[in-house]
Amino acid sequence: MIETDILIIGAGPTGLFAVFEAGLLKLKCHIIDGLPQPGGQLTELYPKKPIFDIPGFPSVLAGDLVDNLMEQIKQFQPGFTLNEKAETIDKLEDGTFIVTTDKGTQHHAKAVAIAGGLGSFEPRKPILKDLEFYEQEDKGVEYFVKDPEKFRNKKVVISGGGDSALDWSIFLANVASEVTLVHRRNEFRGALDSVEKVQELKQAGKIRLITPAEVVGFKGSERIESVDIEINGARMNVETDYFIPLFGLTPKLGAIANWGLEIEKNAIKVNNALDYQTNIEGIYAIGDINTYPGKLKLILCGFHEATLMCQSVFNKLNPGKKYVLKYTTVSGVDGFDGTRKEAEKAVVKSID
Amino acid sequence: MIETDILIIGAGPTGLFAVFEAGLLKLKCHIIDGLPQPGGQLTELYPKKPIFDIPGFPSVLAGDLVDNLMEQIKQFQPGFTLNEKAETIDKLEDGTFIVTTDKGTQHHAKAVAIAGGLGSFEPRKPILKDLEFYEQEDKGVEYFVKDPEKFRNKKVVISGGGDSALDWSIFLANVASEVTLVHRRNEFRGALDSVEKVQELKQAGKIRLITPAEVVGFKGSERIESVDIEINGARMNVETDYFIPLFGLTPKLGAIANWGLEIEKNAIKVNNALDYQTNIEGIYAIGDINTYPGKLKLILCGFHEATLMCQSVFNKLNPGKKYVLKYTTVSGVDGFDGTRKEAEKAVVKSID
Repeated sequence: MIETDILIIGAGPTGLFAVFEAGLLKLKCHIIDGLPQPGGQLTELYPKKPIFDIPGFPSVLAGDLVDNLMEQIKQFQPGFTLNEKAETIDKLEDGTFIVTTDKGTQHHAKAVAIAGGLGSFEPRKPILKDLEFYEQEDKGVEYFVKDPEKFRNKKVVISGGGDSALDWSIFLANVASEVTLVHRRNEFRGALDSVEKVQELKQAGKIRLITPAEVVGFKGSERIESVDIEINGARMNVETDYFIPLFGLTPKLGAIANWGLEIEKNAIKVNNALDYQTNIEGIYAIGDINTYPGKLKLILCGFHEATLMCQSVFNKLNPGKKYVLKYTTVSGVDGFDGTRKEAEKAVVKSID
Repeated sequence: MIETDILIIGAGPTGLFAVFEAGLLKLKCHIIDGLPQPGGQLTELYPKKPIFDIPGFPSVLAGDLVDNLMEQIKQFQPGFTLNEKAETIDKLEDGTFIVTTDKGTQHHAKAVAIAGGLGSFEPRKPILKDLEFYEQEDKGVEYFVKDPEKFRNKKVVISGGGDSALDWSIFLANVASEVTLVHRRNEFRGALDSVEKVQELKQAGKIRLITPAEVVGFKGSERIESVDIEINGARMNVETDYFIPLFGLTPKLGAIANWGLEIEKNAIKVNNALDYQTNIEGIYAIGDINTYPGKLKLILCGFHEATLMCQSVFNKLNPGKKYVLKYTTVSGVDGFDGTRKEAEKAVVKSID
């Protein structure tokens, strides 16, 4: 059982920054995220794209913002349960919570902050006969490239026409024994250099391109052995160990929708006049996943909400204790790892 | 008469960032500040000190944060009325406002956002006979070095033992014809290199140091001609053109306290459950100057408050217009100066 003060669900920018503000209050955080790495949408959907409305950054690449936040919270040693989704929550008699993931990992926390963004990202799936069988573990259909080593010296068919399909085709061209990229149009939509790189790899014989085409069926009894591809009305069969459809992600509230929280338009209602707490005491919702009058789904708003949430948790856990806000410039930052950041102190020195 | 959509009072980080969020909504901003330069406390009190709790910056010097914000808002060409304090406000029949400064400059705005931080900074003054006479314009007492050129080839007596006194003594040593630094102790309290630099300049004869001592009186009929200094019970007289007491600043709510706003503990009460508006429709208070349940005086909270304020002003000025939030990564940023920032577009390109 993982023990923590604040359990944060969602490792996007809001969830990450909460670790810092909690840390200033000596509260320890643990984060659950369904994706294989921290950063949420920023890392998964647009790491190389600039954001222009983060205060103090005339422009910052989404991936760099995540790196900066990870560096900023490092001192407070957050725990991570990645690649798992929060599934159930139980409130104990003492007001604490146990949250269990889809893989059975249990977390015990004094407070829970849902920072799930637009929800957990579910891959858009193709409509194919027997898909449910082949998408079981190790049967050959994969929606994420979580560990590229899995595909070393294997045959891979990737389907899709966007950045993910292009980028993973390029990456796996040097890992897999054979990469086939199937797309229903001749045109791809992505960063110019990705499109050009695929063109190059195709000419070098490292990527086989099949367009305009679609994967329409599977063959294989124990696991996938080949896929059927329809091209211009004709059909061909391509041997493969893996089929990776990369048709984008859609956010789903998922299991959290069943936690008894007040939901409005796919978002969790919170008390914005105090601390972004939900209708269940001890459960907060911060960032894009919450809603309140005047809500704006902006990263900078999530930062503020995370901060007030931490303050509220602190006050609940320390009833009657008067909290005096300290400025980091004045008091420095003491990490849980023993490190200390501080402004250079003024010296008191006589001049003779 | 200066015309603007949103008149912002206070050029600290919150006020500056409001220009950006207003700009995204095509609203023009003008800022009034009593200090000679933008940045508020950050520039005036601790430009060289690091802040550790700005989201996305593991550490940022206060002065750099201000520079970054100025760069970020540049596209939206904010107007500035600096070195002047907002003094009176009149609400016209059409709901717009006229704000007049202590120097008589008039501003006409559709909405007013008070982002005055802890208030306007008033210098701590020495208790000296006839101070009121000599602190009149051009009589010789100055509390800020607004324009160093004023002191070129003049004699200057600076009083104080902190960073301001040290830094301005160093700076003016190369501008004024004579710099005398008077402090009531032998010890100075400031950045190590400032203390060392003053030591050096003293030894080089470029700064005259008088400690432990105090300026106790003025001489001069039309304007200041010399100051009396008490040193170890004895008295001396030093000829000077200017006396600059640098004993620090204290924030005062000032004239704003008389605008009919609901005040609580030296801060302006706002409706945090919607848009940080005060009890007077069309007047908002954002950043450190406001108060509401759970308020934290943090820069990052000011950024959020500024953003929701701009949204509220937009909604009031465009009744019935449905606003669809656009992400800067997706839609780019169009400046009022004709510039455009945008993410590199995906190409749509076939591979052959």
